[in-house]
Amino acid sequence: MIDEQKLQQILRDFANDRDWEQFHSPRNLISALNVEAGELLELFQWESANHVVDVNDPQTREKVEEEIADVFIYLLRIADKLDVQLEDVALAKIKKNAEKYSVEKSKGKAVKYTEL
Amino acid sequence: MIDEQKLQQILRDFANDRDWEQFHSPRNLISALNVEAGELLELFQWESANHVVDVNDPQTREKVEEEIADVFIYLLRIADKLDVQLEDVALAKIKKNAEKYSVEKSKGKAVKYTEL
Amino acid sequence: MIDEQKLQQILRDFANDRDWEQFHSPRNLISALNVEAGELLELFQWESANHVVDVNDPQTREKVEEEIADVFIYLLRIADKLDVQLEDVALAKIKKNAEKYSVEKSKGKAVKYTEL
Amino acid sequence: MIDEQKLQQILRDFANDRDWEQFHSPRNLISALNVEAGELLELFQWESANHVVDVNDPQTREKVEEEIADVFIYLLRIADKLDVQLEDVALAKIKKNAEKYSVEKSKGKAVKYTEL
Repeated sequence: MIDEQKLQQILRDFANDRDWEQFHSPRNLISALNVEAGELLELFQWESANHVVDVNDPQTREKVEEEIADVFIYLLRIADKLDVQLEDVALAKIKKNAEKYSVEKSKGKAVKYTEL
Repeated sequence: MIDEQKLQQILRDFANDRDWEQFHSPRNLISALNVEAGELLELFQWESANHVVDVNDPQTREKVEEEIADVFIYLLRIADKLDVQLEDVALAKIKKNAEKYSVEKSKGKAVKYTEL
Repeated sequence: MIDEQKLQQILRDFANDRDWEQFHSPRNLISALNVEAGELLELFQWESANHVVDVNDPQTREKVEEEIADVFIYLLRIADKLDVQLEDVALAKIKKNAEKYSVEKSKGKAVKYTEL
Repeated sequence: MIDEQKLQQILRDFANDRDWEQFHSPRNLISALNVEAGELLELFQWESANHVVDVNDPQTREKVEEEIADVFIYLLRIADKLDVQLEDVALAKIKKNAEKYSVEKSKGKAVKYTEL
């Protein structure tokens, strides 16, 4: 279980202590989310037939975990600012996706629902 | 509380039912995370002095919630694939950030720790 | 004038000399483009009412120029790999945009053509 | 040859005609660049051993060209706003990269210069 509210309180305090709320508009936090998602992608950007990232290598794993953490931290802040419950919206979206991507039509296909 | 394991089981089943595991390498899921983060940013990209996104407008709110959901869904899948506990890595990263960004040095400053 | 072909030849040689062609699939170069675009965004992510990035500050300017260069370098490589002429596709897209966003309907509006 | 100045003049007129300059701060254009880079990545996000994007398929090619065009269009606008010459900064960056990534040390290696 993830204690969303506890984490968000910690992050709120962190920002308040540093007088950072002035920078934490939804838009800015979403920009930061994109930057961190890019840093996570950077670790995998050159993967190819003979170059697979070894996620069990301790140094790589540490970096991967830190970038995943950064993405999650900003996502929690965004959700807090916009009063969005992450589990609720995820469940609603999964339900919607199940309708857009029926098992019958989408089986084994990596295409957008508009092309099914 | 977010039931991370239940959500991840639902997403695993969703992918399995559609024979999508073949597409869900960590690298591909991280690419999808970036794409969804970009779609969330798109909703805010033209914000300016006289154009602020109204996140309380119902249509805007629906889009924002769906994009937040998409980011969270891929983050859950990535964490599942890599056996990462989101709360654990977030708490570890917050601790590390507290050291890099001491209250004293970073108060009111929007700069990277390397420039403090 | 930008000598696209000369630049692409230089970049091709750069990759060949280092035996990097094996990593430079279109998909990987597009991932790298996203990473670099994120690094450019990072420089502006906390802009707010009382924190505007001074692009005339020499140190900031150097960073901005380097990130713009990185985006352009990967874009040139992608275009080379896919045999796309950047000027041609840009002009074709501007023409298409002019139809989607007529002056009459889109004047002063920061919304997607689907919402005009 | 790419006529950078002609393209930038066309884009300037396009924005002026629609009263869009108010939205085109460097930061906003950089956000849009990220969004478009994400849309280009979306076309390749599920590539895997048995699912390679066929860039010669006419429909796929059209989409790829349009997304490349969008990235280039925003890059030209950013360069125009910040008074950056794309060829100049690219050549300067390639020179710097040649020093960071010597042929000797980086041959066949897909790692950051900090790890060479």
